[in-house]
Amino acid sequence: MTEDGLLRFRQLKSLSPAAVRQEIRQGNYQGQTAGLGFGHLQGNVAIVPSDYALDFFRFCQRNPKPCPLIGVTDAGSAELPGLGSKVDIRTDVPAYNIYRDGQLSDQVTDITDLWSDDLVAFVLGCSFSFEEALISDGIALRHIDEDKTVPMYKTNINTTEAGSFAGPLVVSMRPMSHSDAIRAVKITERFPHAHGSPVFMGDPSKIGIGDISSPDWGEPTAIEEDEVPVFWACGVTPQAAIEQAKLPLFISHAPGHMLLTDVKSSDTGQLKV
Amino acid sequence: MTEDGLLRFRQLKSLSPAAVRQEIRQGNYQGQTAGLGFGHLQGNVAIVPSDYALDFFRFCQRNPKPCPLIGVTDAGSAELPGLGSKVDIRTDVPAYNIYRDGQLSDQVTDITDLWSDDLVAFVLGCSFSFEEALISDGIALRHIDEDKTVPMYKTNINTTEAGSFAGPLVVSMRPMSHSDAIRAVKITERFPHAHGSPVFMGDPSKIGIGDISSPDWGEPTAIEEDEVPVFWACGVTPQAAIEQAKLPLFISHAPGHMLLTDVKSSDTGQLKV
Repeated sequence: MTEDGLLRFRQLKSLSPAAVRQEIRQGNYQGQTAGLGFGHLQGNVAIVPSDYALDFFRFCQRNPKPCPLIGVTDAGSAELPGLGSKVDIRTDVPAYNIYRDGQLSDQVTDITDLWSDDLVAFVLGCSFSFEEALISDGIALRHIDEDKTVPMYKTNINTTEAGSFAGPLVVSMRPMSHSDAIRAVKITERFPHAHGSPVFMGDPSKIGIGDISSPDWGEPTAIEEDEVPVFWACGVTPQAAIEQAKLPLFISHAPGHMLLTDVKSSDTGQLKV
Repeated sequence: MTEDGLLRFRQLKSLSPAAVRQEIRQGNYQGQTAGLGFGHLQGNVAIVPSDYALDFFRFCQRNPKPCPLIGVTDAGSAELPGLGSKVDIRTDVPAYNIYRDGQLSDQVTDITDLWSDDLVAFVLGCSFSFEEALISDGIALRHIDEDKTVPMYKTNINTTEAGSFAGPLVVSMRPMSHSDAIRAVKITERFPHAHGSPVFMGDPSKIGIGDISSPDWGEPTAIEEDEVPVFWACGVTPQAAIEQAKLPLFISHAPGHMLLTDVKSSDTGQLKV
């Protein structure tokens, strides 16, 4: 991050999610969102043509741990009223990746020009919320302490397919002591909208990970002698499933550049009617 | 229930959900399903033309307490692999209601003739699972003790609409002591796929119920002096929302005649990937 960018980030840190979204919409911030809107869910964004929306909905319903759906736009609308006042999915994400026929073709900070009534935006909860909760409870997260991107791996666990959406479960890994690992299960179970409890802990080869020091995404993180690697379902799963489906057009958030919502991280989805 | 029917029901009670589905499919049982497939989720069924499926999906996502979605068929398929081996939604429900343009037009025990590739079946968890858990934990349920249908009421709480699907939240009411009511919150919270924790307890007028002795569906249940009425979101909510949307064709289970699934009642949706 540039010195200017860092200053800007520090100014934003004290603002509400709605106020940060306003800054992003006005083009005043285009950086990563980890640490912003503390205590509120952030969302992965997946925007697909309406012809694919029903199957993607099925994919999320069948794979709730990697795809914890927290909001969907109405036909012809760019708003997400359930996620915050006046959310506009065309302008409120700091950076977007544009994919055409499965290939990354562009990165932009506003998709107003690309938007059409034919698009449907899905928002899926992300891991930031449970990471906040782990840290608050005294469980250190090495990738954060070392300012790295969490390591992510393809597994030999298959998602349940829906239409053209399919592929392996992708997991993120956080090493911790065995006693912290048990606490981490209990803590993250409270955040079903942020991938919930781990899907696996222990020998990575058991879930098809050959070399833990070579993640498929993110950066390697050391695992100390007295630690166990703990694996959570990861939001890259639906991203990878959509990319391999080679939709004519697919728009996502750029990695780390999430949609900030007004939904409390602790909302289990059982709070609302 | 006829004496023959009662005998049949007793025979079925010891069978697995899959075995009961087989009996239903072969036309050997067409009765109510409460008490069958103990320990497993039962489902409300809503079958809609594909043109309406995306909006109904949105309606369920936005209203998870009355509409806890547990399964959706693929385009052109009548199977629900996530809910059990070889579930066939055309034959495995004991009785179906057929609605045309919002009006009940027929009740049948098999919809094979009506089925087409254009239909999408949704299955929503029902309250039987949490009722089992309450009873197991020693909380008596008066409507069951008195062999009545639980009383249900329209409230002044609106669901979050999606396309043509909208309407009031419908709740079911179970009276209990104040201390049991608190225990019931904790117990039913563990069953998000069976409507989860209550939406309200106390003075019915606060949620727009004028006369608690005149339910909109089901039968009145007495509330004793030392009891509080406890209200849960009810699966009649989506049913009423679909009926008022006046779809050209809508097929549901007949009341009390649910789809038995192989999913354990205690599955929080967090167990699977």
